[in-house]
Amino acid sequence: MRIIVVGGTGTIGTAVVELLSARHDVIVAGRRSGEIQVNISSPESVRSMYRRIGSFDALACAAGEAHFGPFETMTEEDLALGIHSKLLGQMRLVLLGRSLIADGGSFTLISGYIFDEPIPEATSFAVANGGVEGFVRAAALSLERRVRINAVSPGLAQDSYEQFGPFNPGRTPVPMVEIASAFGRSIEASSTGEIIRAW
Amino acid sequence: MRIIVVGGTGTIGTAVVELLSARHDVIVAGRRSGEIQVNISSPESVRSMYRRIGSFDALACAAGEAHFGPFETMTEEDLALGIHSKLLGQMRLVLLGRSLIADGGSFTLISGYIFDEPIPEATSFAVANGGVEGFVRAAALSLERRVRINAVSPGLAQDSYEQFGPFNPGRTPVPMVEIASAFGRSIEASSTGEIIRAW
Repeated sequence: MRIIVVGGTGTIGTAVVELLSARHDVIVAGRRSGEIQVNISSPESVRSMYRRIGSFDALACAAGEAHFGPFETMTEEDLALGIHSKLLGQMRLVLLGRSLIADGGSFTLISGYIFDEPIPEATSFAVANGGVEGFVRAAALSLERRVRINAVSPGLAQDSYEQFGPFNPGRTPVPMVEIASAFGRSIEASSTGEIIRAW
Repeated sequence: MRIIVVGGTGTIGTAVVELLSARHDVIVAGRRSGEIQVNISSPESVRSMYRRIGSFDALACAAGEAHFGPFETMTEEDLALGIHSKLLGQMRLVLLGRSLIADGGSFTLISGYIFDEPIPEATSFAVANGGVEGFVRAAALSLERRVRINAVSPGLAQDSYEQFGPFNPGRTPVPMVEIASAFGRSIEASSTGEIIRAW
């Protein structure tokens, strides 16, 4: 399969690319690195990526920013980052890519454990993740040509544990291969509208 | 208690106001009707509402718009309505009201069954509802002075059944008093960070 991995040079994306590359033709898209540059916050940047790539069989997204910081001082402007990047950015990949994806292809977006089990500093991630999960469940009802859509909800990734472990007391990190496998399952198995929890 | 009901003249808000008025001082806020006009999509309008009301014990929101229409033709601009009104508008009520609410007060936002059990025409509602539920769970960890926050997730309201029943084959409508009682429970009981399902 010809698979686009958006955020393919990030912590989770690297593991996804490594897993998929063994048996697929993987196109690595990144904000500032990778084969193709894309900023999912920009409709024009997403359109440009799709123009360069043309048709594809699957898109997996491991990209999307959101505000990380105390709730007490969080403003509407802080919330806007997650809404425009992790939430709207990922939905944009689907809306603009749905006419280019092959019959029976799949979109895999990323949410995260923070929706189900939040921490105070990541309110903006909880919002974006919830929105993404709602989008995935609803879009699965309507995508045509047997195109599927799922979300992977990773736990705290092993490779992010040094940075974010202190904000997550008592949380066991999830091995990178387990998170990558959840993306693999979304792409290679048959489900649609599923939230695949990797934690 | 002094309780603000935003959207208090709408289908669900009317039932909430009726239930609460029997034993509380209720301030009805509406887009174009009610005692106070407020458009939750506008930060300035929300600030103006709070300036007029001053301190309060509880705020319940039964307001918030989102796009309703087929997924096939849905654009990013269509999604923006739900994001700016039902999602960001409700979070704004909390961010701008948290300094004015009384010790031990409560915010009650509205999500909806569409997040858990979507219908094709309401993708934008699924997105907004998921975002609201993530916000509520996360914000509950951080609100100070024993201030609580919950979301009510109503099913298909009895009084909306004539309009939306045809889009919801096989779904049983929920009596208005059951939905209003879920708001009452959020306001008068002790839980926080809860998604109270009324369906």
